[in-house]
Amino acid sequence: MSEETSYTPPKVWTWEQGNGGKFANINRPIAGPTHDKELPKGKHPLQLYSLATPNGVKVTILLEELLAAGHAGAEYDAWLINIGDGDQFGSGFVDVNPNSKIPALMDYSTEKPTRVFESGAILMYLAEKFGNFLPTDPSKRAETLSWLFWQMGSGPYLGGGFGHFYAYAPFKIKYAIDRFAMEVKRQLDVLDRQLANNEYISGDQYTIADIAIWPWYGALVQNKVYGAAEFLDTASYKNVNRWTEQIGQRKAVQRGRMVNRVSGPEEEQLRERHDASDFETKTQDKLEAAGD
Amino acid sequence: MSEETSYTPPKVWTWEQGNGGKFANINRPIAGPTHDKELPKGKHPLQLYSLATPNGVKVTILLEELLAAGHAGAEYDAWLINIGDGDQFGSGFVDVNPNSKIPALMDYSTEKPTRVFESGAILMYLAEKFGNFLPTDPSKRAETLSWLFWQMGSGPYLGGGFGHFYAYAPFKIKYAIDRFAMEVKRQLDVLDRQLANNEYISGDQYTIADIAIWPWYGALVQNKVYGAAEFLDTASYKNVNRWTEQIGQRKAVQRGRMVNRVSGPEEEQLRERHDASDFETKTQDKLEAAGD
Repeated sequence: MSEETSYTPPKVWTWEQGNGGKFANINRPIAGPTHDKELPKGKHPLQLYSLATPNGVKVTILLEELLAAGHAGAEYDAWLINIGDGDQFGSGFVDVNPNSKIPALMDYSTEKPTRVFESGAILMYLAEKFGNFLPTDPSKRAETLSWLFWQMGSGPYLGGGFGHFYAYAPFKIKYAIDRFAMEVKRQLDVLDRQLANNEYISGDQYTIADIAIWPWYGALVQNKVYGAAEFLDTASYKNVNRWTEQIGQRKAVQRGRMVNRVSGPEEEQLRERHDASDFETKTQDKLEAAGD
Repeated sequence: MSEETSYTPPKVWTWEQGNGGKFANINRPIAGPTHDKELPKGKHPLQLYSLATPNGVKVTILLEELLAAGHAGAEYDAWLINIGDGDQFGSGFVDVNPNSKIPALMDYSTEKPTRVFESGAILMYLAEKFGNFLPTDPSKRAETLSWLFWQMGSGPYLGGGFGHFYAYAPFKIKYAIDRFAMEVKRQLDVLDRQLANNEYISGDQYTIADIAIWPWYGALVQNKVYGAAEFLDTASYKNVNRWTEQIGQRKAVQRGRMVNRVSGPEEEQLRERHDASDFETKTQDKLEAAGD
């Protein structure tokens, strides 16, 4: 028998634990908190609870870009939520994001404290709050929104679809890998055609659409996620590669990538971030590491 | 051999056509148009190109709600894009949405014509254009945005994940069905807990978050998609069912569901919509059908 098994689903699905590959221990069919735990709170109005996954990095890049552009109000504390340890199921975190996913943001500068969850919503919220990285011209704003939402709707096919079945599932299922590889290649081609005629995703301005898309598709073509660059022939998407390089050279992007990071070279891991000066120590570490 | 085959992916993925189950003929690894075809254009500033899938219905519901709320500028032409026939790969459609998915909107009332694609972006665009169904209070606006983006990021696990592997794939793969059933049940529980304490998704106001979520999760619990209500025990999510009923009773929702529909009872199919009076004929059909 091949993949085409004679499996017939039961009338009613039941939870069989311990059968889900990597991350199986943090996937559950029920929502809500599993334990009581308050969240820490620092000195700034903006409190971020996150991890340096592609979705987490979107927000820290935007915050660093806002600070670099002179918006002092964007100073923030970034607290580590270790999803492998189940931190996202603590009662305090669930109060900020009932969906138990990073990133999640609290803004204490509003009349009542404001919670924001979903990386795309946080990008919109911050871009509007500080009036930057989101064009005001109605047509350009619509174009940026379209590409921002494009990433939100497309990303799950890359992460929860392709990435899971190619890299994380406990065995390889040809049908699922083929299905999601085809879709991810289509998505890369959509981006490549758009970037053939535009410096940035939504035109001539660097926006939250770039900030949303780069951590996923840039990491893919740079072979930093899933080890699938050769499999998907990502080198053939020339314009995506050009844009990936260009965005990656921005200092704010480099800082944003470091925040709440717990893997890779130690000198690139700023596990918590409470002040702009926190990066300086790490930069010193990096120079020393390079000099070794 | 069971599902745990000894499959090893090749070094570089290649496209094997005709192996993708239902909709295999419209999934491709490349973007861009396959043929030249201009889009039709009607009399109103808003031109919608769509189909009554859950994503399409989001937009027609909002447009009908805006009209019902007195925003005369929301009058629109809705043209049918038959995705089974590949209409989404026509050159005119690709110019409006380079991602070749419905729904897609043109607004000719702006200084330059504005294109908007991705259902979530269209909801944001229209809610902001007419100043309705999106709260202005910053905290409430953030809550609505969070849930709107929640739907965009969660929907692919329901549609492209669960729905595909449970209902459309050419054979049943237990691992994939289990993976996505667990996630969809978690999502239903997230909604159920939120709706336990709130009349609407983001609080006490009916917003574009409800309009985004209802066509997917409402259809699921009413067993109108995938035939999976029993499998997922959707009846147990009491608050989701209460809210599904409540939203479904709105006249604008009932009208929005009919637009660009090509399946189900003939009297509920308004294949194109160019004027508010187009519904009257259909209502007459329906009354006659009920009287038979």
